[in-house]
Amino acid sequence: MFQTFHETARPEQGPPRLKALRGELAREGLDGFIVPRADAHQGEYVAPHDDRLAWLTGFTGSAGYCVALRDVAGVFVDGRYRVQVKAQVASDYTPVDWPETGLAEWIAPKLPGGGAVGIDPWLFSVDQARGLEERLAGIELRRCENLVDRIWEDQPAPPMGAVFAQPVELAGEAHGDKIARLARTFGADTCILTLPDSIAWLLNIRGSDIPRNPVPHGFALLHADATVTLFMDARKLEGLGDHLGAAVILRDPSEFPQALAALRGTVRLDPASCPVAVRETLIACEVTEAQDPCLIPKARKNAAELEGTRAAHLRDGAAMVRFLAWLDRQAPGSLTEIDVVTTLEGCRAATNALRDISFETIAGAGPNGAIVHYRVTEGTNRPVREGELLLVDSGGQYVDGTTDITRTVAVGEVGGEECANFTRVLKGMIALSRLRFPAGLAGRDIDVLARAALWEAGLDYGHGTGHGVGAYLSVHEGPARIARTGTVPFEPGMILSNEPGFYREGAYGIRIENLIAVEEAPPLAGQVVPRMLRFETLTWVPIDRRLIVTALLTAAERDWLDAYHAEVLERIAPLVEGDDATWLEAACAPL
Amino acid sequence: MFQTFHETARPEQGPPRLKALRGELAREGLDGFIVPRADAHQGEYVAPHDDRLAWLTGFTGSAGYCVALRDVAGVFVDGRYRVQVKAQVASDYTPVDWPETGLAEWIAPKLPGGGAVGIDPWLFSVDQARGLEERLAGIELRRCENLVDRIWEDQPAPPMGAVFAQPVELAGEAHGDKIARLARTFGADTCILTLPDSIAWLLNIRGSDIPRNPVPHGFALLHADATVTLFMDARKLEGLGDHLGAAVILRDPSEFPQALAALRGTVRLDPASCPVAVRETLIACEVTEAQDPCLIPKARKNAAELEGTRAAHLRDGAAMVRFLAWLDRQAPGSLTEIDVVTTLEGCRAATNALRDISFETIAGAGPNGAIVHYRVTEGTNRPVREGELLLVDSGGQYVDGTTDITRTVAVGEVGGEECANFTRVLKGMIALSRLRFPAGLAGRDIDVLARAALWEAGLDYGHGTGHGVGAYLSVHEGPARIARTGTVPFEPGMILSNEPGFYREGAYGIRIENLIAVEEAPPLAGQVVPRMLRFETLTWVPIDRRLIVTALLTAAERDWLDAYHAEVLERIAPLVEGDDATWLEAACAPL
Repeated sequence: MFQTFHETARPEQGPPRLKALRGELAREGLDGFIVPRADAHQGEYVAPHDDRLAWLTGFTGSAGYCVALRDVAGVFVDGRYRVQVKAQVASDYTPVDWPETGLAEWIAPKLPGGGAVGIDPWLFSVDQARGLEERLAGIELRRCENLVDRIWEDQPAPPMGAVFAQPVELAGEAHGDKIARLARTFGADTCILTLPDSIAWLLNIRGSDIPRNPVPHGFALLHADATVTLFMDARKLEGLGDHLGAAVILRDPSEFPQALAALRGTVRLDPASCPVAVRETLIACEVTEAQDPCLIPKARKNAAELEGTRAAHLRDGAAMVRFLAWLDRQAPGSLTEIDVVTTLEGCRAATNALRDISFETIAGAGPNGAIVHYRVTEGTNRPVREGELLLVDSGGQYVDGTTDITRTVAVGEVGGEECANFTRVLKGMIALSRLRFPAGLAGRDIDVLARAALWEAGLDYGHGTGHGVGAYLSVHEGPARIARTGTVPFEPGMILSNEPGFYREGAYGIRIENLIAVEEAPPLAGQVVPRMLRFETLTWVPIDRRLIVTALLTAAERDWLDAYHAEVLERIAPLVEGDDATWLEAACAPL
Repeated sequence: MFQTFHETARPEQGPPRLKALRGELAREGLDGFIVPRADAHQGEYVAPHDDRLAWLTGFTGSAGYCVALRDVAGVFVDGRYRVQVKAQVASDYTPVDWPETGLAEWIAPKLPGGGAVGIDPWLFSVDQARGLEERLAGIELRRCENLVDRIWEDQPAPPMGAVFAQPVELAGEAHGDKIARLARTFGADTCILTLPDSIAWLLNIRGSDIPRNPVPHGFALLHADATVTLFMDARKLEGLGDHLGAAVILRDPSEFPQALAALRGTVRLDPASCPVAVRETLIACEVTEAQDPCLIPKARKNAAELEGTRAAHLRDGAAMVRFLAWLDRQAPGSLTEIDVVTTLEGCRAATNALRDISFETIAGAGPNGAIVHYRVTEGTNRPVREGELLLVDSGGQYVDGTTDITRTVAVGEVGGEECANFTRVLKGMIALSRLRFPAGLAGRDIDVLARAALWEAGLDYGHGTGHGVGAYLSVHEGPARIARTGTVPFEPGMILSNEPGFYREGAYGIRIENLIAVEEAPPLAGQVVPRMLRFETLTWVPIDRRLIVTALLTAAERDWLDAYHAEVLERIAPLVEGDDATWLEAACAPL
């Protein structure tokens, strides 16, 4: 079992740790110290070694900061965590609504005479540090040792997860070819890579340093001569054999700073993710700032990666069908959310191919479904009651692909409002699934299609419509997304989620999510647009017909849904048996 | 009659004028000179005095440049004018696809050893001059006298059109109050205004210096003490009486440069429209660059402006209905495009309220309908044949409002493809008309709704979906628009066009256009979005039911169209009589 259900937050531990940190502030002559959730690799998950924000404050969300000043300590959390933070931190900490209130805007009036606030420069990107400095006019942002590490006596060691090769049959391109391809175009003598999934993609390796994302921690220098210097603990690579080859030179992570200082010529780095410590260690070279050159090629999955992803989705779809069929066989009221999560993970594990879950399963019954990033614990665990909606957002990490799917199902008979709003969400999800669009558009240009039916009823959802997804990599992958902030044009091979929703606070939550891949749309007779794209659907799992108000669908929407269900049946029926097969056939009947 | 039909272009005049211009180049030691279409006020229409590009080259489009070098002369035109330019300029001129090829990118390789290219700095905005200089590295962009004016012997005098007051009942706010309101917030000692419609809006005046746009040429300085210095020829203001009042000081335009040079303190200007000559004359003050502060308040029409616009649309709608009814009574094949334009203008003139047409009426029959900015001349005039579509895009300038409407009508029986594509265009137009959306969105966020039905068939249109429209001001008004380039959030009171289309080159054109105004959407029961906006429809004229394939419409679309037609009938029937009333009733019948 990957997922756990214990409460990790212990509010009462916060105050003595804050006191100890303030002792360090005094010792260093600092007025404050900023503790981010992030590690040096700016990912969504951190290793226990890097979980400083949770250790200090008790807050366990996936993003945020603590700004500890001498007499006040703010915990900055975004809209997802406004309720959670209050339960997790002691009263010595003040929750702050971020990004509505910026760190600098909060700090500045508290230090009217100026002062110095410390940061660990490995945990802030170049852009973040610059943004803070611009807005902290008159207050020094001092680079210093990590003061939390100094007081954290039993801090876990840095992760030492095994690294393994991703077979070239699944990666679709030898890592030597990827290196050579990028080396020809990145436009400098050296390119610094600090994002673990960029390095994993480039070298066709996977790792196990952090939960949920199969990547190893490390840094890399990509050289114009098509060689790579990889800074990674050799012990992690023991099982890798000669996969890396002669073009990849391995060095110990401790040598990274001196290697940076020794760089000459032109050096490229990505200010959005590169630690400011790296930037400031480059003392004898000419620096160019540009996007990590792995991001776009990694996002554009090749034929082998798409083939693997399709296979993973069939396997995962069959597991989901077994789970949903099981769920429908239980008496309403007999299950709790933890039962749901446990059984679903069991269905995935039974495939014998599950490497990890893609993220903590969200299983929210009734009002818990309205908490967008809900993770059930023993404290919040709730029976799945008759007449309620159950929202289940989950995914699997398989060696051939990463899945992410949300289904919202009726437990017994549910109300008319829920059905009408489920249908509106479905209309948005279908609008994107059916779309053909001219090449060159980005997420912002199409996001409205997923929302217009909800807007018509005065409804909306407070999250993006879709995120990029990796090929056995991060389930949240940039740079393209379907959202008002999505400005990266779609390109064939990009995998995205399509997940509109609606949340009635205190009552219920609805989300319907398929993964989709951008593909060329074959020209139609009479077509005038030179090149069009569309979305291939990757996810094959029934959508609960009991929640659909057929009269609210247009003929085209109904046709899409019936065709989708016919294809689910065709693809998944061969993979399930007995009662599950019977359930599937009924679930896939036309409207 | 406002519109004329003669060919203004005379290609054979171009070469001797180009030769004379090159004589001036030699005299000035210049390698080239750039002649823009624009005047010092960067508007869409220019006075005959400023029509230098057409005089020099023969090209009469509403945007473009001539770059005359010593041995080659490029005429830069955008996608609207690629065909037209070839017919209008002699072979001494080389048409260049702009903006695909930039001016600097075209010039630079032709002057590999560097050199100097001249511009009249009154005809280039700060941003334009900067953009050119950045990309012309190594070539000087020399400010100089206008060399075209020097060789244009019979150049018309600058316009001297009468200025008149816009009644405060229609403007909705006294100009003294507008001045005081802006003076409190523009954030400098002086703000430079160079856009005629900004000055006209601010001072509640209208003018007649250029065709189609009821604005006077002039410059203004808005001072923080709520006074205005207006640089405008006093002869134009003779009929204005004491409208301007003591807070507006009138000075001769010839004194503008010395007034600029004398400015002290902080000065605000808009680099997107302010001539670079103005910027470079500011020698003793601190300059802030920001958007013209009139743009947003002018775009957000107040209650009186909206009321006037509604009245203008009823009057104009009745004129359009009389025109469409007349058109339907004519035998197919008996009319030409010029007949159509002449009769339509006559219907508007018969209201006794028409001050001008809003722009040259576009009346394109059959394949001419596919030329998006077609203006019929005696040379292109074409019979309106049976079995063809006729596209008519037109508008009127009334003292209470500006209209802009497109209707595409069937002449006799037309083909199935035309009807299917007309219906797809209509679906897009209805999608925007029906939309409710959260406050804060801009044109880019909703443009897709007007196109998705066309994309489904591989079709699209190569222009924006909607532009801002003034209140008895320019029919093309910024800054909001419905287009992929639209990033200005919609605000209540903004008037926009909603005009999707489809053009099959060489065959037919379709466009359907209503004007719409942004308004607050009253909250619905159960609404969760804090504040929503929607569009009020302003245009009330039947949409040709004979071209609609009802089966392609959803029930909601059909309901919208039937309700629209019912409202057209209710509003316009009292304004028309006899055969026209009978025609209207049939045209407004439910589908």
